[in-house]
Amino acid sequence: MSKRLAHTCASLLGRVSRSQCSERSVDDAVPHALRALSGVQARRFADAAYSHVPPGRNHLAVPGPVNIHDSVQRAMVQPSQNHRDPWFPPFFQEILEDCKMIFGTKEGTPFIYPGTGTGGWEVALANTLSPGDKIVTFRYGQFSHLWVDMMQRLGLDVECVEVPWGCGADEAKLEQILKADTDKKIKAVAVVHNETTTGVTSDIKQVREVMDSLSHPALLLVDGVSSIGGLDFQMDAWKVDMAVTGSQKALSLPTGLAVVAASPKALEARKGAKLKRCYYDLEDMLQTNPSGNVPYTPSIPLLYGLRESLRLLKAEGMENVVKRHHRLAEGTRKAVEGWGMKLLCKESRWNSDSLTVIETPQGFDSTKIVKEGYARYNLSLGVGLSEVAGKVFRIGHLGNNDEIMVGSYLFGAEMAMISAGLPIKPGSGVGKAIEYWASTSNVIPTR
Amino acid sequence: MSKRLAHTCASLLGRVSRSQCSERSVDDAVPHALRALSGVQARRFADAAYSHVPPGRNHLAVPGPVNIHDSVQRAMVQPSQNHRDPWFPPFFQEILEDCKMIFGTKEGTPFIYPGTGTGGWEVALANTLSPGDKIVTFRYGQFSHLWVDMMQRLGLDVECVEVPWGCGADEAKLEQILKADTDKKIKAVAVVHNETTTGVTSDIKQVREVMDSLSHPALLLVDGVSSIGGLDFQMDAWKVDMAVTGSQKALSLPTGLAVVAASPKALEARKGAKLKRCYYDLEDMLQTNPSGNVPYTPSIPLLYGLRESLRLLKAEGMENVVKRHHRLAEGTRKAVEGWGMKLLCKESRWNSDSLTVIETPQGFDSTKIVKEGYARYNLSLGVGLSEVAGKVFRIGHLGNNDEIMVGSYLFGAEMAMISAGLPIKPGSGVGKAIEYWASTSNVIPTR
Amino acid sequence: MSKRLAHTCASLLGRVSRSQCSERSVDDAVPHALRALSGVQARRFADAAYSHVPPGRNHLAVPGPVNIHDSVQRAMVQPSQNHRDPWFPPFFQEILEDCKMIFGTKEGTPFIYPGTGTGGWEVALANTLSPGDKIVTFRYGQFSHLWVDMMQRLGLDVECVEVPWGCGADEAKLEQILKADTDKKIKAVAVVHNETTTGVTSDIKQVREVMDSLSHPALLLVDGVSSIGGLDFQMDAWKVDMAVTGSQKALSLPTGLAVVAASPKALEARKGAKLKRCYYDLEDMLQTNPSGNVPYTPSIPLLYGLRESLRLLKAEGMENVVKRHHRLAEGTRKAVEGWGMKLLCKESRWNSDSLTVIETPQGFDSTKIVKEGYARYNLSLGVGLSEVAGKVFRIGHLGNNDEIMVGSYLFGAEMAMISAGLPIKPGSGVGKAIEYWASTSNVIPTR
Amino acid sequence: MSKRLAHTCASLLGRVSRSQCSERSVDDAVPHALRALSGVQARRFADAAYSHVPPGRNHLAVPGPVNIHDSVQRAMVQPSQNHRDPWFPPFFQEILEDCKMIFGTKEGTPFIYPGTGTGGWEVALANTLSPGDKIVTFRYGQFSHLWVDMMQRLGLDVECVEVPWGCGADEAKLEQILKADTDKKIKAVAVVHNETTTGVTSDIKQVREVMDSLSHPALLLVDGVSSIGGLDFQMDAWKVDMAVTGSQKALSLPTGLAVVAASPKALEARKGAKLKRCYYDLEDMLQTNPSGNVPYTPSIPLLYGLRESLRLLKAEGMENVVKRHHRLAEGTRKAVEGWGMKLLCKESRWNSDSLTVIETPQGFDSTKIVKEGYARYNLSLGVGLSEVAGKVFRIGHLGNNDEIMVGSYLFGAEMAMISAGLPIKPGSGVGKAIEYWASTSNVIPTR
Repeated sequence: MSKRLAHTCASLLGRVSRSQCSERSVDDAVPHALRALSGVQARRFADAAYSHVPPGRNHLAVPGPVNIHDSVQRAMVQPSQNHRDPWFPPFFQEILEDCKMIFGTKEGTPFIYPGTGTGGWEVALANTLSPGDKIVTFRYGQFSHLWVDMMQRLGLDVECVEVPWGCGADEAKLEQILKADTDKKIKAVAVVHNETTTGVTSDIKQVREVMDSLSHPALLLVDGVSSIGGLDFQMDAWKVDMAVTGSQKALSLPTGLAVVAASPKALEARKGAKLKRCYYDLEDMLQTNPSGNVPYTPSIPLLYGLRESLRLLKAEGMENVVKRHHRLAEGTRKAVEGWGMKLLCKESRWNSDSLTVIETPQGFDSTKIVKEGYARYNLSLGVGLSEVAGKVFRIGHLGNNDEIMVGSYLFGAEMAMISAGLPIKPGSGVGKAIEYWASTSNVIPTR
Repeated sequence: MSKRLAHTCASLLGRVSRSQCSERSVDDAVPHALRALSGVQARRFADAAYSHVPPGRNHLAVPGPVNIHDSVQRAMVQPSQNHRDPWFPPFFQEILEDCKMIFGTKEGTPFIYPGTGTGGWEVALANTLSPGDKIVTFRYGQFSHLWVDMMQRLGLDVECVEVPWGCGADEAKLEQILKADTDKKIKAVAVVHNETTTGVTSDIKQVREVMDSLSHPALLLVDGVSSIGGLDFQMDAWKVDMAVTGSQKALSLPTGLAVVAASPKALEARKGAKLKRCYYDLEDMLQTNPSGNVPYTPSIPLLYGLRESLRLLKAEGMENVVKRHHRLAEGTRKAVEGWGMKLLCKESRWNSDSLTVIETPQGFDSTKIVKEGYARYNLSLGVGLSEVAGKVFRIGHLGNNDEIMVGSYLFGAEMAMISAGLPIKPGSGVGKAIEYWASTSNVIPTR
Repeated sequence: MSKRLAHTCASLLGRVSRSQCSERSVDDAVPHALRALSGVQARRFADAAYSHVPPGRNHLAVPGPVNIHDSVQRAMVQPSQNHRDPWFPPFFQEILEDCKMIFGTKEGTPFIYPGTGTGGWEVALANTLSPGDKIVTFRYGQFSHLWVDMMQRLGLDVECVEVPWGCGADEAKLEQILKADTDKKIKAVAVVHNETTTGVTSDIKQVREVMDSLSHPALLLVDGVSSIGGLDFQMDAWKVDMAVTGSQKALSLPTGLAVVAASPKALEARKGAKLKRCYYDLEDMLQTNPSGNVPYTPSIPLLYGLRESLRLLKAEGMENVVKRHHRLAEGTRKAVEGWGMKLLCKESRWNSDSLTVIETPQGFDSTKIVKEGYARYNLSLGVGLSEVAGKVFRIGHLGNNDEIMVGSYLFGAEMAMISAGLPIKPGSGVGKAIEYWASTSNVIPTR
Repeated sequence: MSKRLAHTCASLLGRVSRSQCSERSVDDAVPHALRALSGVQARRFADAAYSHVPPGRNHLAVPGPVNIHDSVQRAMVQPSQNHRDPWFPPFFQEILEDCKMIFGTKEGTPFIYPGTGTGGWEVALANTLSPGDKIVTFRYGQFSHLWVDMMQRLGLDVECVEVPWGCGADEAKLEQILKADTDKKIKAVAVVHNETTTGVTSDIKQVREVMDSLSHPALLLVDGVSSIGGLDFQMDAWKVDMAVTGSQKALSLPTGLAVVAASPKALEARKGAKLKRCYYDLEDMLQTNPSGNVPYTPSIPLLYGLRESLRLLKAEGMENVVKRHHRLAEGTRKAVEGWGMKLLCKESRWNSDSLTVIETPQGFDSTKIVKEGYARYNLSLGVGLSEVAGKVFRIGHLGNNDEIMVGSYLFGAEMAMISAGLPIKPGSGVGKAIEYWASTSNVIPTR
């Protein structure tokens, strides 16, 4: 991506939804049946629109929010409870402890904020850095872009490596930059592990190896929002200092929790970090969490849901969870191949097991697939964002999924592509997925 | 089916689940992983077995119980309430009134019993007939068989027309029998509308025409358990006297309500009907329902669920509901064709839009498909029952379903067949369904 | 109660709700605010009426349906599942096994029907007796009356001992009758354990002793609908042959399950019992239950709820459950004393721990208390039924309750009595309950 | 409060839960039954502790989190949904619009953040002020203290008026300060409307009058966390510039939403406000909300819950909501009088209708009441916090409550006080509440 494009990007988009408010999106927001109406009439109809419920169910095939497991849904049907009563501390401490598993850490300290992944980003930055600190990072999609934007707004000195959308963190470029930083002015390297715009998973282990090979002392901050809890993540082994995720991603809960883990090195760095922080200051967590308490009123349903979600992951085993994600993603990629289409992801080593981003033929507006899918089949696919708007569509397979669920997304995507006018041979993609999954399936434990 | 087979059937099976307790089924009940264990060990493991929850969800592709709509699921989260408080009568009366829609009746009177479809059968028979009364009916599957069994146990004089499994009510044979009944001793004709064992929908309209052409005064009793609320059902037009369904079928609720409608003629017949009845006597309903009351404590969650389910059907329009069922069934039949397999149903005019029953190749045990589907893919297909055990498997598409849901059953069925060793070409069936649905789809109203 | 009164009672009431459809009840069904309106206007308002939800919550103080425990409510949020899949048999067998605990039986066999307590009555009678069989029973309230009515409708030869409403089973009278039955023509003695109309718990142990002292071979059939699972019930020790309850009572679930236990003697008697039965025949249960199967599609949410409810009872310990019921009932009786009012129950040995029935002053219409409670405070108390209509009101404390819950019913009842114009001293009743409970409380285990 | 005390306060407490982690609180966290155990044993027991569920229910009598209405609980049982699909914008816009009602504003703009009230505080400060800006505020409890602490941490120049705990905002003192501010250096006046530590509601209208009488241009920032949506709040009439609340207070939802409204003047001030902000920057909301979009993934269940909560408030009418709060609070205060105890609140004009804070006799540790209430009666009362720890206990009556609910808190509190050894006459308090509520009750509309 050129500097100019990056700039345009930064100024035009700002935030995720800002791009959504473009004319294209406004149009999106208007039901088909509404286009002919206007004024009061349309308004009244719009009122009804979201309450209309077709038979069947909504087929949610985006990479977050993720389909909630029945067992987690049930666990969240909770009355309000007083977190200052004695039941809370052991309950909360167990959850914090179990969170370590998804980060792949024994040494790190997990924190749970009422908030979102964006809040988690702020935790990671504001608790480790000071105004004017130099930070190196990569822009290869809208989410990495937004994090860069936050870094700039917080007053950091950002060196942003522009990477073509479809590629991952450029380790060679990083090596070059760090090597040049002879007086170790760079305080942190920040990487989005899985870029949800492009379906690209960067190689954090490699990033760490580059840093180690140069004995660079910078902190390693990782956005694992769409990876942690689903893809392989080894906080301790990769010496990640701050790792961030959110409840609505691999944890497969509703939105509402920013879950962050900090290494001992990060906690040490915190003491000198001078960025202004208040709500997202770790201080208050560190004062209260060790005794099982919290600085802010916690969301009781989400904590019960998180406990159940962690229980499910633990029962399956994180290693199996990672394998399942890979196998479901592989089946999806086989389907794409079957359709004769291409991944946006440029190298197979970066293939994302969280979601698959598919390039549509030149001259074809990919948004049409998403629109038709939603309008005709109650299917929710992901549109292309920002630089790749209209050029790709996205299928999520992160979190709580199995073969038939992802199969149903592929089934729906085939119908949507056909309805949108693409010359897809019916069965060409789903058949490939069936072939792959049927030939690699196992009996579910205890069945 | 020969007389002898019918007899063997009657004596061997008795009830639905009795056949399930055969050696084959006992084996079914043992998880794969359990087969090697024994005694205490196995017991302990079995305790855990049903609480194990794989990621994703269970894919319920049987013709009942049916997948509950989110909106209905939500409506049923209700605290206990006192049905003797004044809120209840108008609430209940509206539900009773709205039930008429699914029966296609304005003149009939609906009744709601805490019970199941089997209880509904008893309502239909016990409230209209007397011991020794002659009744004509057909046996072409396990459910018609069980109803025959009930008729006999209640002490009726049953003339049961044996029909090959895969065929529907034989109108010519009925005509012959009624013609011969010159002194009008036959008090009732009883027909299972949709036979869930075979995927056959009999033609009630034709049955009525036969009766009318002979001016035969017998009552027409119809088991619409797996049709009413989903398939075309015209109680008034077809002059059905007793029509029976259950909450877990097209109404897409949990089991627990027998919903029955009686024609004015049936209510008149009730006065002279001498079969013993108590719980399932209409008397107590007739005494209480008109003022919005009930003779037995009602199930509050189910009534709220029923209200919401009826609201959804009303919003969609019963005509559209029927069309949707047909279209989903057609897609399924296309898939079967794509697989190169055959329906058990022998004539297309009887094709069931509630479920599809598929014959597997001779010498192959169809139960294997169901077992593999459940063990590997968390898919719940229907096994072949009784006479067709091992020879067919069943895919339900009754009630709350859309293209992608049924598509997911087909997707799962393809994987299950492959895992079970059938030489199915991956994508051959699902591709046909995609082709059909994509070429016939409409935009969802308000989208 | 005189013969004449009993007759009037029998012909006037018929069923519970029939009495409710009297003019008084119809009036009840009309919201205060609706009385002035008429026609379409009122109809539209009535539509809205039941959907109006005041802040706070409905305070359900009737003896059934009973307040559902949060934990049970949560357990019932279940998708539809296929009971023919292998998970079901061990799941169901465990539930059946755990049901024994509430009946106080090791030798008895529990059965679970989709249905209500009324259905359970039919199970108990129809499976053990033949047409014309002689049965002795007592009428001392509307529920015993209704059971008598069923016995008559089923064609039994009923000897019904009329007992003043407020008294329990008359053991002396029973002794006299059984003694006179020298040729042992009496096949069964049937007793309603806890009469919910009057707040009277009969002494089943004494009944058994009378039978034993005369070595009378009659079966002992007990309606434990409003006792089993809450009050002391010893099926084995008292040699009860059929015991009946329903899910919405002490088990604190929604309505929908008739739970019945049969002694070996009852199962033996079944073989010769000639009453017509079909849906409520034990035959089909006996054929299927031993392998964990069921003859009718089961209600999945209710079974999960039942499992959780039994788990809670087991965790508390049935002995503690019984003590809790007694303690809560004692506090309620103290409150009644504090109000200067009287129990309908005539002897303290019959005091019901399930509910308290309170006589209101002569000339005062007790229904007014219930109406005011509901209209002003969203409180659901029980009205007086049938013979005691207008003379008493009822407070339930059966099932899922604790001190503060029952305290809130008393609090509400005091307000309702005052609003209804009774000269109650504010605090006079609740103060007594507080005094009693505070002086006898224990720390909750694990707190 | 002296300067010294304020300082001690500031350094000792820091955050709400920090005080909770004092030795007293740690002790709180240990179940009675656990005190004797130690090490592994205790740990294992503690694991079980929070999963133990006594019969009945938890009686939540704290001023937040607040009991969730059944109807809201139900509305929140939602699958994950894609907020980028067209259903979302009109759905979200309606919610935003309806939020205005609780703030008493037509001119203000509401914002909804995934977060808590603490986050809302940050929104109010960071979006209107610059580093070093002068702000005047009051400290009269732990929550006002914590907001002062945030102001200081954000780098504002805080003039904090120390007020005795039990008193409200000191208008005279404010007048004096503003009068002295001749060159209008004070940029904002910040007031906690209802101080949850002390049960004191300050008079915002008076504060505004002081400001207006001096034509002081400072912004008026109000923490309405425990008032807005329950107590009278007139954002437009009182010219409040930033008003803050959270979902778990009067809105009676789970924690998770910070709801903030900004006046046009505040939005204007934002443009020059230089405090660093990112997650809590209004910028991204202002860019996206007008088209119904959001900058961060929203919590679907909470938004559905909020919609239902607002619907309930609208149906009741905000004026009636305020009256209900007052009436419930008055009854509680009558009970306190009946007990012969005193409010911590020093003047009746400051009496809080959100909660009642009751002083316990000198020398008695008030925490004992809370402990006994929880341990014996499953009652959750509020402990005294910080300066008044051990000296008071708190009963909440904010949000979703009715007479019998608050009555049950009083009932439980009486038992708890007796169990804790206070010489309370049983019925002395609850009787007063009954008297008051019964004499002032109305029929519920539509009943």
